[in-house]
Amino acid sequence: MRDVAVIGTGMIDFGELWAKSMRTMWAEASLAALADSGVDGVDLITVGCMSSGLFVGQEHLASLLSDELGMAGIAAGRVESACASGGLALRAGFAEVASGLSETVLVTGVEKMTDVDGADATYALGTAADQEWEGFHGITFPGLYAMLAQVHMQRFGTTSEQLAEVAVKNHANGLLNPHAQYHLKVSVEDVLASTMVADPLHLLDCSPVTDGAAALVITSVERARELAGDRPVVKITGSGMATDTITLANRADLSELAAVRLAAERAYAMAGKSPEDIHLAEVHDCFTIAEIMATEAIGLFDPGFGASAVEKGLTALQGKIPVNPSGGLKSKGHPVGATGVAQVAEIVTQLRGEAGQRQVEGAKVGLAQNMGGSGGSSIVHILEVA
Amino acid sequence: MRDVAVIGTGMIDFGELWAKSMRTMWAEASLAALADSGVDGVDLITVGCMSSGLFVGQEHLASLLSDELGMAGIAAGRVESACASGGLALRAGFAEVASGLSETVLVTGVEKMTDVDGADATYALGTAADQEWEGFHGITFPGLYAMLAQVHMQRFGTTSEQLAEVAVKNHANGLLNPHAQYHLKVSVEDVLASTMVADPLHLLDCSPVTDGAAALVITSVERARELAGDRPVVKITGSGMATDTITLANRADLSELAAVRLAAERAYAMAGKSPEDIHLAEVHDCFTIAEIMATEAIGLFDPGFGASAVEKGLTALQGKIPVNPSGGLKSKGHPVGATGVAQVAEIVTQLRGEAGQRQVEGAKVGLAQNMGGSGGSSIVHILEVA
Repeated sequence: MRDVAVIGTGMIDFGELWAKSMRTMWAEASLAALADSGVDGVDLITVGCMSSGLFVGQEHLASLLSDELGMAGIAAGRVESACASGGLALRAGFAEVASGLSETVLVTGVEKMTDVDGADATYALGTAADQEWEGFHGITFPGLYAMLAQVHMQRFGTTSEQLAEVAVKNHANGLLNPHAQYHLKVSVEDVLASTMVADPLHLLDCSPVTDGAAALVITSVERARELAGDRPVVKITGSGMATDTITLANRADLSELAAVRLAAERAYAMAGKSPEDIHLAEVHDCFTIAEIMATEAIGLFDPGFGASAVEKGLTALQGKIPVNPSGGLKSKGHPVGATGVAQVAEIVTQLRGEAGQRQVEGAKVGLAQNMGGSGGSSIVHILEVA
Repeated sequence: MRDVAVIGTGMIDFGELWAKSMRTMWAEASLAALADSGVDGVDLITVGCMSSGLFVGQEHLASLLSDELGMAGIAAGRVESACASGGLALRAGFAEVASGLSETVLVTGVEKMTDVDGADATYALGTAADQEWEGFHGITFPGLYAMLAQVHMQRFGTTSEQLAEVAVKNHANGLLNPHAQYHLKVSVEDVLASTMVADPLHLLDCSPVTDGAAALVITSVERARELAGDRPVVKITGSGMATDTITLANRADLSELAAVRLAAERAYAMAGKSPEDIHLAEVHDCFTIAEIMATEAIGLFDPGFGASAVEKGLTALQGKIPVNPSGGLKSKGHPVGATGVAQVAEIVTQLRGEAGQRQVEGAKVGLAQNMGGSGGSSIVHILEVA
């Protein structure tokens, strides 16, 4: 298997982008990544996108988007694993370069979510749950994560204040990220005073609906060294994927995210690393409880200690193990198909030492954890300065 | 790059399957492929599906379907390239095994198309075209292929009778395929007398709306040899993908399918083969004109000679180069996400000498050509008895 490196990153400013279409956003992010990489062509394009069919009435993104970039003819394909579609796009590109089938791949993610009304967006997102056993009976994602939060609270004594601390931290980090959807400081009091969406999750415990796109260029480590110049070469050393039952009702234990644990175990095994080796992580904080459970599942903290860790500042930008220095889904925004790609873009930016005010000092090993549905799928990548 | 072989195939009887849900169809095909392969587990599941979001209100198939098979925990992902989603599922699995990231992969395709009314099915299929430049202005797929047919007729003198001959041949082949949706003999007169859908395409020039699922198990050639027993080992020797502009309006030449030509060239180059080496082909006959243009694009016939070839019987089951011995999309049915997988299942069945009454004698090298939209993407695989 060939070693694979990330040589370019690009993302647009996330937000409610009513003046930009899906294809425009995607092309802007892709051109930024290509410019950053220094290559003038690629062999393959992968696109992570959850539900362009429901959000904008458009499938067949491989053809549509390659064409938009003036690259009709190129090999291209789309992947989907709900909100983990971006991570899957990287995995697909990684397998192509690792096998030698492709030399250089443009890995992208995109979601245009604000061209429909709120009810339709909620319906589209709900298709990440088991519609026949969950969605059609009325539950939506805040409700599913609220149930996970309730179990975590009962089992471990996690509090609403601790959940709020995740939002406080991630919004503080987001203030330092020019691409973030929200540049606003929030306090624990703000979170607790915001509208209750699904008990115990308040509005400020939830990530937003976002338009956005992100992109990476990956190639063999050998080629990356030739192109790197003075910049560090960032290698993908671990890639792990896993699923869990899609319905919460069928899970053995609702206090853990088993798909995340399994995906992380597989990524660690491949990289020859353990949680202690990780310098920073981007995790899938679609809700505040999700970040706490994710940090436990990837082994940064023991089960039940994720909440106190954030309260103690261990996951802050200057903490022991910074989590979501980008601002996370909470502040940066969550264009679902783009999220997994944007997470890796942040890790690469950090490992290159190019993160500016939000730079994690001495970062040499980073982890990105992307998740679909209520934890029905997860993809974890480990990246290192080669 | 490791050599990869197909060790199991499975498909359900295609049709209007109102008593079977998407997950049931998919599980039946998957279990059939696993039983045929002789393995008791796989490392990864890939799912080709075009638009489960629009057809059945469900995304996140990786989690949903792994769970349905009792395999929650396994790595899984879905891919989409409109009606070429099945071919893309094989490509994704192929890259995983070739790289060594996975040892054994369950490659699947599924589409549940009859749980919506006709207008909604037409809308869902229309998302494979450029909605902003084609679909939203009123054109649907029969219209797009009718335009391709009109150009082919003007340029090469292709006739309605020659188009009809494709339907006659494929329905004759489908009579010999127990999995086919339609077991009926049609004549040139029947085709020409059927309702005009979009001039020059009659109803019997069009493939149907179908529910169906198909599956393959692939692994390293090394492991395949251990498992093969007396059966031939069928190796994937070529895999090529390409795109074209998604809109017909932007194409340089409407008399050829450039994405198919490019994908085939890439697959031939990888396999070290040329069109003369192919013993049989499954091609994407979503409309009769599509088969004619595909046989030209993959190089079986020179441009403009595809129509006379079918008229002369060259592509018949006993002809010089049998095309669509399975009955093709026309007779076997076209559950869009499953089609690309079912095509490869047919090639493998033929190369194993297990195709019964529709067996192509002496078949050692086969080609499967899958296509998205009006030729906006295509994926070609070449398979050989190792």
